[in-house]
Amino acid sequence: MGRYEDKFKTFLDEERKIVDKRLSQSLKNRKPSSLYEPGYYIIEGGGKRLRPLLVLLAVKAVGGKLNKAYNAAAAVELLHNFTLVHDDIMDNANKRRNILTVHKKYDTNIAILAGDSLLSVAYEYLLKDCNGTAKKVLAAFTKGLVEVCEGQSLDKEFELSENVSIEEYIVMIQKKTAAMIEMCCTIGAVIGGGDEKEVRSLANFGKNIGIAFQIQDDLLDITGDENDFGKFVGGDLVEGKKTFLFLKALEVSEGTDKDRFLEIIKNKGVKPGQIQSYKELYQKLNVLEDAEKEIKHYTNLALKSIKKIKNEKYREYFALLADLLIKRRK
Amino acid sequence: MGRYEDKFKTFLDEERKIVDKRLSQSLKNRKPSSLYEPGYYIIEGGGKRLRPLLVLLAVKAVGGKLNKAYNAAAAVELLHNFTLVHDDIMDNANKRRNILTVHKKYDTNIAILAGDSLLSVAYEYLLKDCNGTAKKVLAAFTKGLVEVCEGQSLDKEFELSENVSIEEYIVMIQKKTAAMIEMCCTIGAVIGGGDEKEVRSLANFGKNIGIAFQIQDDLLDITGDENDFGKFVGGDLVEGKKTFLFLKALEVSEGTDKDRFLEIIKNKGVKPGQIQSYKELYQKLNVLEDAEKEIKHYTNLALKSIKKIKNEKYREYFALLADLLIKRRK
Repeated sequence: MGRYEDKFKTFLDEERKIVDKRLSQSLKNRKPSSLYEPGYYIIEGGGKRLRPLLVLLAVKAVGGKLNKAYNAAAAVELLHNFTLVHDDIMDNANKRRNILTVHKKYDTNIAILAGDSLLSVAYEYLLKDCNGTAKKVLAAFTKGLVEVCEGQSLDKEFELSENVSIEEYIVMIQKKTAAMIEMCCTIGAVIGGGDEKEVRSLANFGKNIGIAFQIQDDLLDITGDENDFGKFVGGDLVEGKKTFLFLKALEVSEGTDKDRFLEIIKNKGVKPGQIQSYKELYQKLNVLEDAEKEIKHYTNLALKSIKKIKNEKYREYFALLADLLIKRRK
Repeated sequence: MGRYEDKFKTFLDEERKIVDKRLSQSLKNRKPSSLYEPGYYIIEGGGKRLRPLLVLLAVKAVGGKLNKAYNAAAAVELLHNFTLVHDDIMDNANKRRNILTVHKKYDTNIAILAGDSLLSVAYEYLLKDCNGTAKKVLAAFTKGLVEVCEGQSLDKEFELSENVSIEEYIVMIQKKTAAMIEMCCTIGAVIGGGDEKEVRSLANFGKNIGIAFQIQDDLLDITGDENDFGKFVGGDLVEGKKTFLFLKALEVSEGTDKDRFLEIIKNKGVKPGQIQSYKELYQKLNVLEDAEKEIKHYTNLALKSIKKIKNEKYREYFALLADLLIKRRK
């Protein structure tokens, strides 16, 4: 893979700059400022722009032209940030990317409306890039929106539920995380002029890598390096989140071990001082390895579906992107 | 106009039933219920379905077929209810249509997400009805969404502002109320196969009747009959809202009269016991008549723009609808 690695990095760096500029244009100095300024604040707050870059990679993978997709690339990031603003209200989160969340910097009412407007501008920008393909592109985008709402709702349901199966968890992360990644690949492929088979392959890549990405996120919460990761280790345990690790541990444990996991549900989380002992329990039960296996399983499915990309360079770019998504922050 | 009045009423009654059924189908028993049940609750809570009916009337006015537009008709009502759910949170409203608002019946987090999902289903349904016209229809719908967010933001800005001009107020209600009415006419006309001139005429009708409708709403707050109106008389004064009446009164009053209106800004509203004396002050300053003149002005602009509808019956239906919107609850 070595021969493309540098080129890939250059591609990401250059395209990220173009995307950032387009995103900035979409909201900067737009009136009324009471509406758009909070949206501009979160967009300028950073982010890796993985979703827009996926759109652009999918365009290239099917032989399309990038300059027909920059508005669509901006649109998926606007949609993503709409979900972040509303999710942060629901999660009562104080910070994101090391700056105050929108509802903490402004207030909840402003954040609700700022989120809504990010979504409205997302559709506005998407419409700029879909002459001829409007119905397909907008249907994929809307499907992503529907699923991300459903996923968030399931995630909130699970917080209150005492028994969530691994299967239900996979459905939830497929909707909450993977559907949007899938959508990015789909609309890139459609705008780029891909045929049905190409669109399906790339969509399938997105869906599977999205699921792998989320399980990896769960795993990094406990194995990640504090500094690299940007959040404190074990945060999911403290919040009592029903992650892959937790649900797997609940499934495979017995006796007093199981009781300790049931305690998390009862107490709605653990104390920070308990994180290390739960990590050791995860290790004893092999659930960290189980998670790695699951990540590998979905990553392999993703990699399999891009084998059909004809252009060698972009096939490798997709493989490198998968690597980037899964190996991140490790 | 008499010869069409009964037929018009029958049309509204019959079409409303079809729209209600479609709306019900769009959300009933949809999973996850934690997401869709609150949306179903507000949709089933009633409403006159004026916006869907406008879509359908516009379809007929340009000679189109109704059964190609029922999903679009449902979509505009879903969009409308998305705005109601989020606005009610921002306004901290307890009741709407005599039942608890979504955030009071459930909670704020659920209401935020339920609102988002109503919008997502709105796009989903709209997409069912726009083969061939997808880009135009979705652009009009999205423009309506962008403007309604901007209008709501301006409305909230005005609450805190000490000087709002009548011109700024008209811009606000054009965005907050009229843009959505305009959008209903536009998408009906486009789906119905109208030519550019027809689309423009109907859009123009919607915009102007929407502005008239909102000023009428402001007027009814103080002149309306308590029982007919469903809200208590003078509510806008109590909340210190910057309505047409208030801004006009502020503009034309002098001396101690002006001081009394400036007091409303300072105190962020009046006490219920003061409503009658403010009503008398409005009468003394002739602002009720000024409002009526303004309503007439915009209504006439609306009626002028539908003169070009070729089909006599539907031209009259539009005039009757204008009448219904403006004379309502009086």
